[in-house]
Amino acid sequence: MPSPPAPSVTVLGLGAMGSALAAATLAAGHPTTVWNRTPGRAEALAAAGARAATTVREAAVAAEIVVVCLLDHASVLEVLDPVADALADRTLVDVTTTTPEESRALATWAAEHGIDHVDGGIMAVPSMIGGPGAEVLYSGPRDAFDTARPVLDRWGQSSWLGDDPGLAPLYDLALLASMYAMFAGFFHGAAMVGTAGVSATDFARRAAPWLAAMTSELADYADVVDRRDYGGPGQQSLEFSDPSDILRASEEAGLATDVVAAVRALVRRQVDAGYGADGFARIVESIRNPGHDAGAVRADAEQPIVAGGTS
Amino acid sequence: MPSPPAPSVTVLGLGAMGSALAAATLAAGHPTTVWNRTPGRAEALAAAGARAATTVREAAVAAEIVVVCLLDHASVLEVLDPVADALADRTLVDVTTTTPEESRALATWAAEHGIDHVDGGIMAVPSMIGGPGAEVLYSGPRDAFDTARPVLDRWGQSSWLGDDPGLAPLYDLALLASMYAMFAGFFHGAAMVGTAGVSATDFARRAAPWLAAMTSELADYADVVDRRDYGGPGQQSLEFSDPSDILRASEEAGLATDVVAAVRALVRRQVDAGYGADGFARIVESIRNPGHDAGAVRADAEQPIVAGGTS
Repeated sequence: MPSPPAPSVTVLGLGAMGSALAAATLAAGHPTTVWNRTPGRAEALAAAGARAATTVREAAVAAEIVVVCLLDHASVLEVLDPVADALADRTLVDVTTTTPEESRALATWAAEHGIDHVDGGIMAVPSMIGGPGAEVLYSGPRDAFDTARPVLDRWGQSSWLGDDPGLAPLYDLALLASMYAMFAGFFHGAAMVGTAGVSATDFARRAAPWLAAMTSELADYADVVDRRDYGGPGQQSLEFSDPSDILRASEEAGLATDVVAAVRALVRRQVDAGYGADGFARIVESIRNPGHDAGAVRADAEQPIVAGGTS
Repeated sequence: MPSPPAPSVTVLGLGAMGSALAAATLAAGHPTTVWNRTPGRAEALAAAGARAATTVREAAVAAEIVVVCLLDHASVLEVLDPVADALADRTLVDVTTTTPEESRALATWAAEHGIDHVDGGIMAVPSMIGGPGAEVLYSGPRDAFDTARPVLDRWGQSSWLGDDPGLAPLYDLALLASMYAMFAGFFHGAAMVGTAGVSATDFARRAAPWLAAMTSELADYADVVDRRDYGGPGQQSLEFSDPSDILRASEEAGLATDVVAAVRALVRRQVDAGYGADGFARIVESIRNPGHDAGAVRADAEQPIVAGGTS
């Protein structure tokens, strides 16, 4: 018995990620149509067998599953709204990075035009697409997800989070926030050792396995956060975690301190509010409570609550 | 032939890290003396066989290898200077987190008092000490490192970086900068998904393996940084990496944006200077060139150089 034909796919937007998504579906045997505002981007994919559409409309009508991977929510609406009629009854998978509210707005727009809409948040960089370790989070109607799934599974592990289309973008942005912060911290460290003539490559040789090892701490931090047990035993204190020494060393070396200063501000808001002996995980309260409020006041705080902060 | 006796060790400072270091040498059979300004901290170690000294001097004379693990450089001098005579001819291993210049100052102080000094930077959290994945970086005279090594190897992999005592602290602070940024990013993400009722533990289940996977990108970023090849193919552009959507979603959710805003400032300084099409690794130039200077000006930058920035 022959296997069912692979669903056809259109990818709108051929940045590094869109190109990687299209290459993966093409390699897996899905008839793949691609479109990009700047036509040159389609050349390599066309040479590999993709159909390069010259208009969005031509691309939209070419496939059952239409993937959109553009710069932002505004670009998505700008590209799709003029061809909404051509997308009716198709499954639209928006992997553009948007906010949860923007995703819900696109879902409303799609429903108005009879389009099935799934939001996707790609937890990978382009080079990881189609390989082990790539995960894509989805939210929106389960049946739309199931329809698109034969295509989606070509990119990595597909995880459906729920009906609310805002869930995938929320998780997506939360994971991206962690990633960008880690990357920025890496570049800061590379700049620091660079002042002593150490190459970024040498630094990466130590930093990559070490940061990977440090991720094993996150489950414990999360447990502390969920139980709000910042005073429990075995935690490294906020006083001890104050990165003022990193800030000072960075200034001594003539470097910009944006990222370290931000971490320090989160720490200082808790220390200034009297929680210096609590564990480092308490900085989550600085994030949850903006405006120089250190979060719920602990009755047994040993130091007076100080209004204001150091941010 | 009996093995040589395990060198005796003193650990000054019993915070979470100092306690873990002392516990590891004690477990490995080294006669271990401990001291802490607040005596209560020594109780568990004393129950396990450590000698709890009541004064710094008593602790200093008790062992060949004296480890100091205090809050900062000022605490180290404050504790050691009064007993400098008792430390003569001993090997002092300072694993307190200090700046490179502070480490060089302590080396000078030690030399003046006939003390062998090695600086150590611990690339692990206390729970990792003595287990796989813990690495400690050292710098200072090689013979002092070799003398202390039977003790040092109890904590993890011991790596000697060179004679300049400032090297280990520089690497230490650079790796700590990366780590704190990653942790702060994790807490930011946990706070984000928390606004939709998702637990930090659920978030950690995805964030930990995902961040670990992302560390595989660091070698490529480092290569780009070393070659300053920010315009090479296959890089995710700065325009695409602008975390303004994460910032907006965080504000929508009522969260403080310190960490995301810091990353965004690094990105914007490059974009504003006309490098928006270059790869994300170019943010290292924002760090290397503080004061709103975007680094070396590219002759073919498509947009005018803008003085100032968004930080």
